[in-house]
Amino acid sequence: MKHQSAAILVIGNEILSGRTREANAHLSAQKLFAYGCKLGEITVVPDIEERIVTTLNRLRSEFDAVITSGGIGPTHDDITMDAVAKAFGVALIEHRHIVQAMTEHYGENGLNAGRRRMSRVPAGAHLIRCEKTIAPGAHINNVYVLAGVPDIFASQLEAILPDFGGAPFLRREIEVAMAESSFALLLEEIQQQFPDVEIGSYPGRCGNKPCGKICLSAQDAEQLTKAEHAANEMLKHLLIKSSD
Amino acid sequence: MKHQSAAILVIGNEILSGRTREANAHLSAQKLFAYGCKLGEITVVPDIEERIVTTLNRLRSEFDAVITSGGIGPTHDDITMDAVAKAFGVALIEHRHIVQAMTEHYGENGLNAGRRRMSRVPAGAHLIRCEKTIAPGAHINNVYVLAGVPDIFASQLEAILPDFGGAPFLRREIEVAMAESSFALLLEEIQQQFPDVEIGSYPGRCGNKPCGKICLSAQDAEQLTKAEHAANEMLKHLLIKSSD
Repeated sequence: MKHQSAAILVIGNEILSGRTREANAHLSAQKLFAYGCKLGEITVVPDIEERIVTTLNRLRSEFDAVITSGGIGPTHDDITMDAVAKAFGVALIEHRHIVQAMTEHYGENGLNAGRRRMSRVPAGAHLIRCEKTIAPGAHINNVYVLAGVPDIFASQLEAILPDFGGAPFLRREIEVAMAESSFALLLEEIQQQFPDVEIGSYPGRCGNKPCGKICLSAQDAEQLTKAEHAANEMLKHLLIKSSD
Repeated sequence: MKHQSAAILVIGNEILSGRTREANAHLSAQKLFAYGCKLGEITVVPDIEERIVTTLNRLRSEFDAVITSGGIGPTHDDITMDAVAKAFGVALIEHRHIVQAMTEHYGENGLNAGRRRMSRVPAGAHLIRCEKTIAPGAHINNVYVLAGVPDIFASQLEAILPDFGGAPFLRREIEVAMAESSFALLLEEIQQQFPDVEIGSYPGRCGNKPCGKICLSAQDAEQLTKAEHAANEMLKHLLIKSSD
């Protein structure tokens, strides 16, 4: 059974201090949408073990699966593997396949303490390999532990996406050259008619005039087309009325 | 007493579906860092009242203050004010100052149902005004409710930042032309010597060679300078050793 819902847990002081603009959550959101898995929450916490453990345990009970990003490198601030092991109440072990691959890659003397740190995974975890790095991510139960470096994260994400989703979500957007407030009530009626279509309205400005987009998404193409048609008809009538 | 810790709560399906890349959390992180307020968590939830209420109540008990972003427009998917009122167990009221300002701005006939929706705030809330919009944000207890549209959010954020912080955080970065694993243990020792300095290590690649940055931040400039000096000395010794 594939995961129908998911949460993203980003771990890193550098995000919370504003040093780095987070990128992996947005990529995950786009990919999960395309795969048909509902992303229900994104949470960013600092490099503090207790905060990671508490948040991970909450998210993995509320959603089918959790993808974590960050904190699996060789330095003291990389504590995600420790926290995941603690959250599951299992030991953190040096995985012999990783030690072996690193020994082959760096030589016997190249396997220093930092690299050895990257060979540790929660006991019972499966490795998530990708071509970008010799240090793999880990998959234990419904939690997927990925690297924070964006190109490694992206590569590891591709490796796990087949575990997620169902019917892909589809999206349609309608450009609207009027203020949201002029169609707000009518759009709400359409939302009530089509409860399985998610309808959002996002304002913008075109020059100095209000404009915006109505965004519709659903897994059922027929419902989506009907709702889109209803929204277009509603807007057409409003435009005729306003030009009377 | 100014808020020493804060959380950001972003509300919006458009972020979780990957339609929109979130921007307000990163801006807030940078500003709060500069003001000396510790940002402890960023969480993104969908436009579902129960999820907003539960998350807001958790965050406002765990941190000095919470800044919310999004969901205060005129359409059916804008439910943040409703959720905040519910979280505090107070009524949602039409604020007469907002109704008055909107009536003056749009005329009696221009105050349609959508705009009227934007005049609602939790009872007892103070208004957060900015020059970008006639519809204000709201401040109730330790929660600040801001708009999601980036330029409006930025303007409202400036209006509330004086409530946050203490001694500004300072940051120093050291560029490092070697793999993180080669200094990981030595850097950990420096972190232990300077517990009030937050030390992170972030890998990168320079061409096909590993490189990266050591990032130090603290409120105490003297401690920061000492830790930076210790890190530079450590790196110098490593380079001498490796060229032996």
